[in-house]
Amino acid sequence: MALSQVDMRDENGVALAVSVLKQRFGERLSQSASLREQHGHTTTWLSNQPPDAVVFAESTEEVSEIVRVCAEHRAPIIAFGTGTSLEGHLNAPYGGVSVDLSRMNRIVAVHAEDLDCVVEPGVTRKQLNAYLHDQGLFFPIDPGADASLGGMAATRASGTNAVRYGTMKDNVLNVTAIMPDGAIVKTAKRAKKTAAGYDLTRLLVGSEGTLGIITELTLRLQGIPQAMSAAVCSFPDIEAACRAVIATIQYGIPVARIELADELQIRACNAYSGLRLAESPALFLEFHGTPASVEEQAKEFGGIAEELGGGDFVWETHEEDRQKLWQARHDAYFAVRGLRPGADVLATDVCVPISRLADCVMETKADLDRLDILAPIVGHAGDGNFHLSVLVDTADAKEVAAVEELLGRLAKRAIAMDGTCTGEHGIGQGKIDYLEAELGSALGVMRTIKAAIDPLNIMNPGKIVRL
Amino acid sequence: MALSQVDMRDENGVALAVSVLKQRFGERLSQSASLREQHGHTTTWLSNQPPDAVVFAESTEEVSEIVRVCAEHRAPIIAFGTGTSLEGHLNAPYGGVSVDLSRMNRIVAVHAEDLDCVVEPGVTRKQLNAYLHDQGLFFPIDPGADASLGGMAATRASGTNAVRYGTMKDNVLNVTAIMPDGAIVKTAKRAKKTAAGYDLTRLLVGSEGTLGIITELTLRLQGIPQAMSAAVCSFPDIEAACRAVIATIQYGIPVARIELADELQIRACNAYSGLRLAESPALFLEFHGTPASVEEQAKEFGGIAEELGGGDFVWETHEEDRQKLWQARHDAYFAVRGLRPGADVLATDVCVPISRLADCVMETKADLDRLDILAPIVGHAGDGNFHLSVLVDTADAKEVAAVEELLGRLAKRAIAMDGTCTGEHGIGQGKIDYLEAELGSALGVMRTIKAAIDPLNIMNPGKIVRL
Repeated sequence: MALSQVDMRDENGVALAVSVLKQRFGERLSQSASLREQHGHTTTWLSNQPPDAVVFAESTEEVSEIVRVCAEHRAPIIAFGTGTSLEGHLNAPYGGVSVDLSRMNRIVAVHAEDLDCVVEPGVTRKQLNAYLHDQGLFFPIDPGADASLGGMAATRASGTNAVRYGTMKDNVLNVTAIMPDGAIVKTAKRAKKTAAGYDLTRLLVGSEGTLGIITELTLRLQGIPQAMSAAVCSFPDIEAACRAVIATIQYGIPVARIELADELQIRACNAYSGLRLAESPALFLEFHGTPASVEEQAKEFGGIAEELGGGDFVWETHEEDRQKLWQARHDAYFAVRGLRPGADVLATDVCVPISRLADCVMETKADLDRLDILAPIVGHAGDGNFHLSVLVDTADAKEVAAVEELLGRLAKRAIAMDGTCTGEHGIGQGKIDYLEAELGSALGVMRTIKAAIDPLNIMNPGKIVRL
Repeated sequence: MALSQVDMRDENGVALAVSVLKQRFGERLSQSASLREQHGHTTTWLSNQPPDAVVFAESTEEVSEIVRVCAEHRAPIIAFGTGTSLEGHLNAPYGGVSVDLSRMNRIVAVHAEDLDCVVEPGVTRKQLNAYLHDQGLFFPIDPGADASLGGMAATRASGTNAVRYGTMKDNVLNVTAIMPDGAIVKTAKRAKKTAAGYDLTRLLVGSEGTLGIITELTLRLQGIPQAMSAAVCSFPDIEAACRAVIATIQYGIPVARIELADELQIRACNAYSGLRLAESPALFLEFHGTPASVEEQAKEFGGIAEELGGGDFVWETHEEDRQKLWQARHDAYFAVRGLRPGADVLATDVCVPISRLADCVMETKADLDRLDILAPIVGHAGDGNFHLSVLVDTADAKEVAAVEELLGRLAKRAIAMDGTCTGEHGIGQGKIDYLEAELGSALGVMRTIKAAIDPLNIMNPGKIVRL
């Protein structure tokens, strides 16, 4: 590759860019160690590689200006939303500037009649849903954290509702993005569908800030269903719970959520969130629709569960109780810490065709048992997607090595089942090698695109692909 | 651009490529005038620009071989499925080789338990659905023609079911594609969702053969609903019909189909398909679900229709009658010919946010009335997408010029309403200028991608973007 690319830490260029930006942005640019550390590393277990400076942008034009300065001096740029990504997406291995978008948090427009809205990237999903609630609308995508919508688009986030409503790829109508040369590009209009040229919206969704920085998004919205009902159902073992999920999807029951938790995760949630569930594998479900349709779905699922030994149904139909249940589900990541105080949590995810879900979960549990590693399983089982929250003492090199091998086997297992090494966490730094194993020659096309759009390799370098 | 690109007709390179391919493929390569003409031009109204040769490929490896030969001699390559695209996608303005994929029509695998299947690109949608029927499964995307699934992916097709099931972008899990250097690339595994790197699947879906040739696809399938019910409902005027569509979508009724036809289109369908509908604007609807849910949806829609003066419901619940009704809807394009025998049909489409549907249709009808041009309107109104089938005497230059101005105004109108110049027909040759008007600076990114992936510009040159 050309020497002008960012392929090593270019102290001089970065220092120049930071000094130019400092003059322009004054107090809004900070080089404090704690802020830099916080922007390089939040929930990930990977080593912290802080940027050289953090600048708080307040408009599309400002982001364009920052990118132009960084391009001129070959300084890496890393977009920052809420810092809740899990695979080292925000680390700055070559230094550079973190562009914090959290102040760009205006809801620009809600088109209730078109079921869409326009937001700045720093708006969080909970902020948006609080704003929409009185209009009878909601935005369904819900990764556990209260992430920013720009970050959710950049990482192609999904969550518990994806089984019914899809992922960010299905719910972003267009983005405005700053390209690596500072150009401001809008990828599509607001029509619900389009056949107008290359799908740049979906190229940027999931590109993890390596091709451009999203500064505005148009999102699809949903009407709040007339009726919603949530339930927890316990199963004698994890295989039975998986089989119930598979049957539910195959029978076409339009569940809004169907989440798997193993007995360890249930124990953690009981302790952390004050639930009183039986300590056995369980499914968390939610049904959306008209009152009659919700009742029908619940009845159909009940039949499936019964055949597989499921029972101990806990039903929640009141808004407050439902919210409490789902907050407990979303807090799963934090809850597991209580199982081994002091340990770090290494979160990973894979996704397989649903027919292989039970096999993949069972083989993974056997691997964990063999190594005597504590790692609750929780997952968006309706999509064949599950998470492992591995409790690990990161100071113990031997333990870390064992866990890394375990993760490698998990990724390899999912890929061998025609699945992916990541259903929703993304590649970042942590899964670059698995991506190569998963997609082979397609990586060449990804590299070609990256090199063409970002020839200086300044946009979040060292993530997704190595040039 | 570099001189080595295909940016003019390179007779010599093409002749060399054809001669090498003739030696290799023998009888499977033809240069007959009628076959060449048929492969350049089928349903489009644009002037025929035939390729220099047609080669019938039978495997992924053969397509790779053909592409390598063409790349070596800088000969354009145009992929051909069933030839039912409408914007000159198949024309060969710089000559070259048409790769006919219709013999690659094997259904490779059906994974009923995962609700997906793997097919070769020449399988048509009707062939697939006939095959799936006994397993209780179907593939929902249905452009009017019995198009090939490879072509449908390449043009990001949609159709009447898109309002419920999405477009090809939502229903293709991965593709195997031959890239311009002959490399065989598979864009993703078979998991229902993935966060593994750039979304190459959706980059190739809708790329109209300008970035690669699809030689295998994995498609999402649906279970055949327990109950289906279709209806036609007449309205006093087109505005009332549009308002009924808007209300249906806004109320969140999960219609499987909601199609608009104006009085001209109804007259044509009555004559062509032997229907006996009232000659006034109408909606064609279909509801999918459990028996109770279908009844509930129909009742809710009935309430909306009544408020807007809709009535004269014709209900079809028997499979055969439903099929007849939808065949009539799909034959709309052919039916309109009867309104002006001897005229050509110029089919175009636009798509707007649904709140603007009535405005866009009404303004377009006023424009047609002013010019005294016959052009029935039919559309996938639930998506804000509608079609104009303009009856035009293509020998009359003055009339053609007037129609071209009309189309320009239509595209401009849709774009001004934050919509797109094409909801599902694509760009091809016919809409290149509108694409520029619609997306502005985003075209620069499309050109960068095209130039990087296909530096010789051999893949369907002259479509989507001009380099």
